[in-house]
Amino acid sequence: MSESATAADALSAFGPGGTASAAHVRSIIRKGGWTAHTSGLANGHVQGNVVILPVDQANDFLRYCQRNPKPCPLLTVSEPGQAQLPALGADIDIRTDVPRYRVWRDGVLSAEPTDVRALWRDDLVTFVIGCSFSFEEALIESGLRIRHIDQHRNVPMYRTSVATEAAGPFKGPLVVTMRPFKAADAIRAIQITSRFPNVHGAPVHIGDPALIGIADLAHPDYGDAVDVMPDEIPVFWACGVTPQAALVQARPALCITHAPGAMLITDLLNHQLASF
Amino acid sequence: MSESATAADALSAFGPGGTASAAHVRSIIRKGGWTAHTSGLANGHVQGNVVILPVDQANDFLRYCQRNPKPCPLLTVSEPGQAQLPALGADIDIRTDVPRYRVWRDGVLSAEPTDVRALWRDDLVTFVIGCSFSFEEALIESGLRIRHIDQHRNVPMYRTSVATEAAGPFKGPLVVTMRPFKAADAIRAIQITSRFPNVHGAPVHIGDPALIGIADLAHPDYGDAVDVMPDEIPVFWACGVTPQAALVQARPALCITHAPGAMLITDLLNHQLASF
Repeated sequence: MSESATAADALSAFGPGGTASAAHVRSIIRKGGWTAHTSGLANGHVQGNVVILPVDQANDFLRYCQRNPKPCPLLTVSEPGQAQLPALGADIDIRTDVPRYRVWRDGVLSAEPTDVRALWRDDLVTFVIGCSFSFEEALIESGLRIRHIDQHRNVPMYRTSVATEAAGPFKGPLVVTMRPFKAADAIRAIQITSRFPNVHGAPVHIGDPALIGIADLAHPDYGDAVDVMPDEIPVFWACGVTPQAALVQARPALCITHAPGAMLITDLLNHQLASF
Repeated sequence: MSESATAADALSAFGPGGTASAAHVRSIIRKGGWTAHTSGLANGHVQGNVVILPVDQANDFLRYCQRNPKPCPLLTVSEPGQAQLPALGADIDIRTDVPRYRVWRDGVLSAEPTDVRALWRDDLVTFVIGCSFSFEEALIESGLRIRHIDQHRNVPMYRTSVATEAAGPFKGPLVVTMRPFKAADAIRAIQITSRFPNVHGAPVHIGDPALIGIADLAHPDYGDAVDVMPDEIPVFWACGVTPQAALVQARPALCITHAPGAMLITDLLNHQLASF
């Protein structure tokens, strides 16, 4: 095999749908070799939402997550100042291993660096929160079609009339994603996602959107609208945008998150998260 | 304790909601001491629908059940001529242990005896099919309210436009039961009943009744209508009336079943049926 073929293979294994190991993908991200969204990278591996807060706000935010486990399913929480996350990958350094970060000061976006070593402090606590990529993989593996993927759109997200349980400055509405299915597939989707409590788990609502304060499915608050057919039922899951919305309105002096879609890739396999 | 108090206690333990063992309840039924419905007897124990057929029709009926496991979940099938069902209870004699039988000749109801020893033949095969009493117990234990129980009615049942898979002379529409729930309880009911594949398992449909050929929820084909509130979603489960309807239209020369509601009480615990 020629050297260039090997390089092409390595690139192919790395890219979307590729088979490169999570550690290899992270090593490329760590060197600044990938600064975009992570959808489809290191297939089969759990990807996580990242929130980094000073310890004072971190204590409130931890209580917020524990009170609202469906929108905020914690995969891990670090010690203050600890940049390593051994529960998610032996070599992870949270200061370098996310493709692109967002730095928020007093609730206002102030920078989008690809590395936050210069901002690191001994009092920073890292939260990694599960995301729906994991259960979407399980749905697809079971033969279900996911409308927004088929329509090449972002998942539609809606602010609901359901309030989360507040903790300190963190509060706000439950935000949900919506995926439409025929009834038999909706039942199957409830069964499958019930197996994944660490990545939002079972739906929080099915059927009439008005019952949770959604006026019009065609006008999501985030993401893109998708088609809902007359013989389909909308199915709603708690969404990781919920804690992001709570963070924005809490306006902590400093907060670091991943940039949308540019997640932390972990060594955990999605299948490892299944509870039965 | 006086002798009469002891007798009263025994009666109380035996009756609906009572704690008498399944074997004790069967011993009373065997002597002709109880010829009515079995709802609430030997609480916590699996009750089964009974179908007894000559071996020729039994082979077709077995294939019918295997092709339609959601309406016909088999708990056990006997050898030809075998009156004992050791898988369901060491002392069971299927000729005497059902409170009241129905004897069908050429598809026509011909007798309702409390004992079928006089009819027994070496070629008769017994089928015991799970029933929804088991999953209703699990729903109630999880804090859900079941409308037809709260309204002191029989569960509403509907013939659907969904055809079962035929086997020999056995065929016909899928019959379903309906229980209305608020969305969050409907999701929970799907999770709970998914654990019980041997007693109809997960629902077969949720939402719009017209999609499975039900014109009007207020007019069930069997049982009683129940109230469905505007914020509720109807949830439909496959029903053990499906094989009964297939039997009636197949018109076997001889068929023996339990009388409606007068089930076989087994030694199995409902909790033993949970698959996870």
